[in-house]
Amino acid sequence: MKAKVAINGYGTIGKRVADAVAAQDDMEIVGVVKTRPSFEARIATEKGYDVYTNSQENIASFNKSGIEVSGTIDELLDKADIVVDATPGNLGGEYKKLYQKHGVKAVWQGGEDHELAGFSFNSEANYKDAVGLDFARVVSCNTTGLIRVLYPLDKKYGIRKARVTLMRRATDPGDIKKGPINALVPDPVKLPSHHGPDVNSILPNIDITSVGVKTSTTLMHLHAVNIELKQTCVEDDIISLLGGRPRIRLVNSKDGIKSTAEAMELAKDLGRPRGDMWENILWKDSISIDKGELYLFQAIHQESDVVPENVDAIRAMLGLEKDGAKSIMKTNKALGITA
Amino acid sequence: MKAKVAINGYGTIGKRVADAVAAQDDMEIVGVVKTRPSFEARIATEKGYDVYTNSQENIASFNKSGIEVSGTIDELLDKADIVVDATPGNLGGEYKKLYQKHGVKAVWQGGEDHELAGFSFNSEANYKDAVGLDFARVVSCNTTGLIRVLYPLDKKYGIRKARVTLMRRATDPGDIKKGPINALVPDPVKLPSHHGPDVNSILPNIDITSVGVKTSTTLMHLHAVNIELKQTCVEDDIISLLGGRPRIRLVNSKDGIKSTAEAMELAKDLGRPRGDMWENILWKDSISIDKGELYLFQAIHQESDVVPENVDAIRAMLGLEKDGAKSIMKTNKALGITA
Repeated sequence: MKAKVAINGYGTIGKRVADAVAAQDDMEIVGVVKTRPSFEARIATEKGYDVYTNSQENIASFNKSGIEVSGTIDELLDKADIVVDATPGNLGGEYKKLYQKHGVKAVWQGGEDHELAGFSFNSEANYKDAVGLDFARVVSCNTTGLIRVLYPLDKKYGIRKARVTLMRRATDPGDIKKGPINALVPDPVKLPSHHGPDVNSILPNIDITSVGVKTSTTLMHLHAVNIELKQTCVEDDIISLLGGRPRIRLVNSKDGIKSTAEAMELAKDLGRPRGDMWENILWKDSISIDKGELYLFQAIHQESDVVPENVDAIRAMLGLEKDGAKSIMKTNKALGITA
Repeated sequence: MKAKVAINGYGTIGKRVADAVAAQDDMEIVGVVKTRPSFEARIATEKGYDVYTNSQENIASFNKSGIEVSGTIDELLDKADIVVDATPGNLGGEYKKLYQKHGVKAVWQGGEDHELAGFSFNSEANYKDAVGLDFARVVSCNTTGLIRVLYPLDKKYGIRKARVTLMRRATDPGDIKKGPINALVPDPVKLPSHHGPDVNSILPNIDITSVGVKTSTTLMHLHAVNIELKQTCVEDDIISLLGGRPRIRLVNSKDGIKSTAEAMELAKDLGRPRGDMWENILWKDSISIDKGELYLFQAIHQESDVVPENVDAIRAMLGLEKDGAKSIMKTNKALGITA
């Protein structure tokens, strides 16, 4: 019998996690929760997902829009083994009580604090510690992207110090409300940014300092990474190590992938749903050892890199698979990640 | 008698240097060279600058456009003590021969190699070494902006290592040909970038590594700077040191300057010609010591920060003033820089 997964919040992350869960053979979507009868809710019903909403008033507004609604979130939670909470950040506290009331496990996203779940998750770094847990939080897109690189490097060579400049996309492509259109915005101005401490929620012993800047683009985040390693190595060692990770895709600027825009074009050409790029796009030809320190560039698709991590988190928490590497391979295979 | 300055190349930098020279009481513009009869050439004549061009054919095209042209570059160079070369990069070699033939001193811009001039100039760092020189090169906008910060920090505290991420504006506001519109472009992908070595053309002993990324904006460059200092100090020491420099303007995000866009708005409100910001915009509230290392953000107006440096270079090379600090103050006063 497949594990029953509910999705609370069917926006950028929620709708992607729903499709990724539906693609697995050991779990299924029992319903998704949407507050408003938007085009996304309509498409959810067309895909065959049962759509629930969070109040009786909202049921009325769904009925008015002619979008079939299956009931309230309470009814959905009674059917689910686990809920993926992809609601906007900081609603976590209220929902946690609801999930506890219904005795359902919950996976939150990086917009919530570590403390809410008590456990922050990354598939490669700490899958085994998530096995059987009731609550976990999949860290943000940027933190996930960083840990995919830092964890194997620290394990193999030891990280003395990591310094990261995160050039962030300003907002997602479908969002017409936010800027900047033409500016660079130090964010936060007060250094360092929260990304370093967020990495430490999973890898507490890595000395990392991060700074963030919001840029006028919607496509992907770009990380300029500087790392002092404890053990000496050469560029080919790093290429070999990172190229072998299951969710890092090495690209070469000489092949025509010179920017985040071309990385997104690659995702479309690969036939990825919604043009998603679940892996870190790491420029092989950016990997350099300069005066003994490692430098590299990677791009992170903010809308999708945490999606396979959510699938793995579900599998761990429900005990469907005890071995993280096996879960990663299973998720990747179902999604078609062959990097 | 005022020193006679010619401007070869009346584009983004040339037109600004012309106005800055014209604002000084010890130098004057004897003419500017423009290849094509564009709107900029027309405005130059309206401002009272004699416009020259670089061939007899181009004189014909100026005549056809009804823009008064005073002759060829050869005629202009015979009247000048010094020429500011603001032609597109890599034309330097050809023009150098011409300047030598006419016995005129020359100031190049950062698009040319250090070797062409044999001397790279920054007002604070090496004014006295430029006194009397025939040839010098004012380093690029980014390098100028970096040296303004690195030089005083190195002098006072010693720099063990500087690491800089340069988030570059993609092109200038008036340029409709270039991109990217919506992307982040590691440039160069192969790390590190040339900016570190360019800093070393003036400050050879500073250990600096830089990486560059082209961003979808036209306004200013943004530098995320990390520096390990040799001597311990606190944030207030850095604020006091950098706040006291003549071409650094400290701003505070709490005053509403949170981005490059607002920094440009400040320049306009200050009544600056063309909305130029000649100083580094350095966020006071970004200055942080984290785990013993200094971090800060600064924005650099690519179209104008080298303009006062060009004026100082002229003054040094013609021996109009031997003391760099006095020249800086004189230039600043004439332009209205009161930071």
